[in-house]
Amino acid sequence: MRENKYDDPDFFTRYSAMSRSVQGLAGAGEWPALQKLLPEFQGRRVLDLGCGFGWHCRYAAERGAVAVVGTDLSAKMLEQARQKNTLPQIVYRRQAIEDMDDPSGSFDVVISSLTFHYLASFTDVCRRVWDWLTPCGDFVFSVEHPVFTAAGAQDWHYSTDGVPQHWPVDCYFDEGPRQAMFLGEQVVKYHRTLTTYLQDLLHIGFVMKAVVEPMPDATLRAVMPDEMRRPMMLLVAAQKPS
Amino acid sequence: MRENKYDDPDFFTRYSAMSRSVQGLAGAGEWPALQKLLPEFQGRRVLDLGCGFGWHCRYAAERGAVAVVGTDLSAKMLEQARQKNTLPQIVYRRQAIEDMDDPSGSFDVVISSLTFHYLASFTDVCRRVWDWLTPCGDFVFSVEHPVFTAAGAQDWHYSTDGVPQHWPVDCYFDEGPRQAMFLGEQVVKYHRTLTTYLQDLLHIGFVMKAVVEPMPDATLRAVMPDEMRRPMMLLVAAQKPS
Repeated sequence: MRENKYDDPDFFTRYSAMSRSVQGLAGAGEWPALQKLLPEFQGRRVLDLGCGFGWHCRYAAERGAVAVVGTDLSAKMLEQARQKNTLPQIVYRRQAIEDMDDPSGSFDVVISSLTFHYLASFTDVCRRVWDWLTPCGDFVFSVEHPVFTAAGAQDWHYSTDGVPQHWPVDCYFDEGPRQAMFLGEQVVKYHRTLTTYLQDLLHIGFVMKAVVEPMPDATLRAVMPDEMRRPMMLLVAAQKPS
Repeated sequence: MRENKYDDPDFFTRYSAMSRSVQGLAGAGEWPALQKLLPEFQGRRVLDLGCGFGWHCRYAAERGAVAVVGTDLSAKMLEQARQKNTLPQIVYRRQAIEDMDDPSGSFDVVISSLTFHYLASFTDVCRRVWDWLTPCGDFVFSVEHPVFTAAGAQDWHYSTDGVPQHWPVDCYFDEGPRQAMFLGEQVVKYHRTLTTYLQDLLHIGFVMKAVVEPMPDATLRAVMPDEMRRPMMLLVAAQKPS
């Protein structure tokens, strides 16, 4: 099992205090935009890659999915998922995406929330998801936006008196690992370009259904006005043709 | 006829000295990437919105297009186009996109190079192009990248000793006009998000074929290494379904 920052106790404690961990979907700023892109779940078999606390698994199950598999690398995440979001249709598995051997056509829907920027190869993910999906299968995911990951430090450029001046973009075309600060820890995230995300999907044969940079809603904007200044996430919905 | 910066004599002189004006397609850094996205031209009717010196019109005609219409707002541009890139299949027209009244289904291919960021509404362009295209018609265009247009000034953030530190992104979700410096003049360009470009196309019914941020090739990289640090252009290929 690969090293996973989420099993570091201090990091996990801080992650568990984030509003998306405490409140679930309602605590995630991008949820209203992501929800609009999610496909029909009724009667379908769903895979959630990097399921975390299992909020999306539960959402799919409550909307009629007949079977939901949530996979994650972190034992602590899955422990929370089993406590908070257990339903008879949901199975949680501790497994890296690259170690999964589910047969072709195992799923009708694959979802993933804020996971792929931890993986070195998106091309490899695409290939696997394509194989796991049935024809007309849906693939919907969120990642940190290339604008957010490019420079690496994932922080504003500040004036000398500490006011955020603008968001720095650098090294955009140099894809690969970045040392980012997240919840007070050094975390490795992988930067890749928008081109790579979208062209990988198109090259393998997916039909693009939506590409959305979620904009903060009025409530979030009021408390975090800087969220209007740069895109933080990228949401993509694609479909395997019939 | 709307105000057009390209008909300002000083501005036009400077534009005419750019390598893309002198050398044509070979002088445009994004050309190798754009060329790969262009559709079949043989036997097809082509419209080039914002044709400038007519280099793309000529390219289409030389590859077998039966009729090419190049439109531009600038009289000076079209004068150059008629001098440099005249072929019997090509007609140049001085016309704003919003004033064009070509009937539905007039074209099999619509192309546009670095024009739409001068227009207030991309949604309106999409509707018009959709109407002008025949079923299976192709729509390929380049624009300045939202990362390039967001903050407005279109320049690096420099250290005190004048070294480019990073590219500043700001006001990303505030779409609208920006006062940008281009060839030593204040020019109005319109910033819009990636979401707007792609979702406008998808909402009207286009099928996404390619979304590419052109990366400088080895030659360009050697003389302009900063071009690897941020995306400057966005190329999109879409198709009207059959």
